[in-house]
Amino acid sequence: MPTPDLSAKGIQAATPCAKFDTVAYDLHEPGPDDVVIAVKYCGVCHSDVHAARDEVAPGHGKFPVIPGHEIAGVVEWVGANVTKLSAGDHAGVGCMVDSCLGCEYCDLSEEQYCDKACTWTYGSDPVHGRAGKVATRGGYSSRMVVNEHFVVKVPKELPMEFVGPILCAGITTYDPLVHFKAGSAHVKRVGIIGGGGLGMFGIKLAKALGCEVTAITTSPSKAAALKALGATRVVVSTDEQQMKDAARSQDLILNTIAVAHEVMHYHPLLRPNGNIVQLGLVPQAHSVVQLPLLGRRAGITGSCVGGMAATQSLVDLCAREKIYPEVEVVPCSQVDKVYDELLGKATNPKRFVLDIAGTMDQFYAEHHP
Amino acid sequence: MPTPDLSAKGIQAATPCAKFDTVAYDLHEPGPDDVVIAVKYCGVCHSDVHAARDEVAPGHGKFPVIPGHEIAGVVEWVGANVTKLSAGDHAGVGCMVDSCLGCEYCDLSEEQYCDKACTWTYGSDPVHGRAGKVATRGGYSSRMVVNEHFVVKVPKELPMEFVGPILCAGITTYDPLVHFKAGSAHVKRVGIIGGGGLGMFGIKLAKALGCEVTAITTSPSKAAALKALGATRVVVSTDEQQMKDAARSQDLILNTIAVAHEVMHYHPLLRPNGNIVQLGLVPQAHSVVQLPLLGRRAGITGSCVGGMAATQSLVDLCAREKIYPEVEVVPCSQVDKVYDELLGKATNPKRFVLDIAGTMDQFYAEHHP
Repeated sequence: MPTPDLSAKGIQAATPCAKFDTVAYDLHEPGPDDVVIAVKYCGVCHSDVHAARDEVAPGHGKFPVIPGHEIAGVVEWVGANVTKLSAGDHAGVGCMVDSCLGCEYCDLSEEQYCDKACTWTYGSDPVHGRAGKVATRGGYSSRMVVNEHFVVKVPKELPMEFVGPILCAGITTYDPLVHFKAGSAHVKRVGIIGGGGLGMFGIKLAKALGCEVTAITTSPSKAAALKALGATRVVVSTDEQQMKDAARSQDLILNTIAVAHEVMHYHPLLRPNGNIVQLGLVPQAHSVVQLPLLGRRAGITGSCVGGMAATQSLVDLCAREKIYPEVEVVPCSQVDKVYDELLGKATNPKRFVLDIAGTMDQFYAEHHP
Repeated sequence: MPTPDLSAKGIQAATPCAKFDTVAYDLHEPGPDDVVIAVKYCGVCHSDVHAARDEVAPGHGKFPVIPGHEIAGVVEWVGANVTKLSAGDHAGVGCMVDSCLGCEYCDLSEEQYCDKACTWTYGSDPVHGRAGKVATRGGYSSRMVVNEHFVVKVPKELPMEFVGPILCAGITTYDPLVHFKAGSAHVKRVGIIGGGGLGMFGIKLAKALGCEVTAITTSPSKAAALKALGATRVVVSTDEQQMKDAARSQDLILNTIAVAHEVMHYHPLLRPNGNIVQLGLVPQAHSVVQLPLLGRRAGITGSCVGGMAATQSLVDLCAREKIYPEVEVVPCSQVDKVYDELLGKATNPKRFVLDIAGTMDQFYAEHHP
């Protein structure tokens, strides 16, 4: 294969909370196991906002940072050892771009729990050797070099603008559904708390896995919409009687609440052997009394994105079943406005997706006249 | 078969905290699925003390109460439909004597989580129809009628005085080990917190299941004893460095602590996909932050005794592998003294076992001269 073009343009936050600017740079030289991807779309995740504001571990974020881990693009070049992708294929890159690939969890394709810590797609030191030599740069970028293992092949029938959120909100709900065997004989009844991006995906995916889905929400007004997504029952969590009626009814609950809350308010909905899976980055503590856990062997756990095998299986499922997130494609020039909107009380349940291929050059030109 | 003798003598607490006295009564008429058991030994569980003092749900305990759910005896009579037991067999009765036998959990032989609530061996209303017509009477009693389903067959090579604690402390640790697949490929490293009756059993059973066992204790002085039971490693939980060195090392942890504690002190010892199983009846709340759960998909759960199939399998295992609890057989006349000892700061790790067959008549005679 001819030498690949390694020039890239990216959208970066130079310092915490700075407005975005653009930068041109060269990607690291790809090796035989790497692919070069021309990025077409990149979704804007709430985590990007936290990272760009250095809110994850304040004072420890790496700047400048080029965020983005909901990446869809077209393969431009593949190394000699690459087998699962060819030039012209549609490809996706999610939250990780490297891990040790030698530990128990990497062997299970649960790279996100790698014993030596996975390398996140942006702002991470490339300690395992497959992600270049400088802190990783994400998908707000025209081009990327990624090791084949961390790239998913995207079926061409799946519209590219939908791919990014599948790799983040999608896998965050899909992975615990699969891990806890949703849809199997004793895990048929699945509750999804919250009706935002994660919750909507969770409902659709649990339904696709053959579950009987209960949407649990604070908003009675959302009931019809949640049913339209696939919920057969809606429980309003502020309604004491409804919560009482739903006691001991769910084999598995995904809790997408991303603000302070009391998990034990929802725990009584679990059946014996059930689990409530916390998915939100909530820093506040819950008060947990253990007797209700004993009486039903019912657990509280957490889950973080998902491994590469599960991600590929999810992308294939979404393509096959036409499970699409709600997205709004915006030009790169809107990135600051999108962040402002996400920082406010976002009522828009749609995921913003940057049109990288269509608008990056123009955005770059505006910054570099 | 000839008509069985249904006369029984029992040791009862007439009112909360009263000293024990003795009583003679007739058992309910056995049906074709029942067995009559001449009780030989009954262990004294800490739960008996709570029940006799009406501390479980104060004001709601049933009195008089005849406690005891660690029961070993000899089958005297079997009903026409009974298949697994014959007269002369050794038999055990644990914490349950009935459940609906029609729900999902009874079908799984997890009768302790019965959708309609199981009937406990003493002080429980016999709502399912297989445990007589009055509140159930436990094993501090010379004779019992029990439905075959809730009786385990005890191999004759297992000394009878050891049977009772196996049916309570034993199954409480064995059931979660089996449920969470201890000994399987990804659940090899098992931690046991606490070195009392439950903890000692847990260490022996985890070892018997092929696990690499870590004993976690506050007492460095117990290290040699815990290793003698089968632990290959001892972690002193008050030693910050030892706890740090043990981080992310355990696939499963059984926590036998039965007083107020912070579960998140131990949670960092879990590997990804691990669970910490709370076994103690601790009423105080834990403060649980969910981010550490997310980062390792690591859960907190609880567990309560075990079902009949697991109990039979445990009794068979203990007989085969000669896994015995530490017991001290005492005459029935010592029962008040035993309770006093259990109410104090018990340092005796041995389980007290009442010699029912050998001493009940004399104890009764002392009360009814």
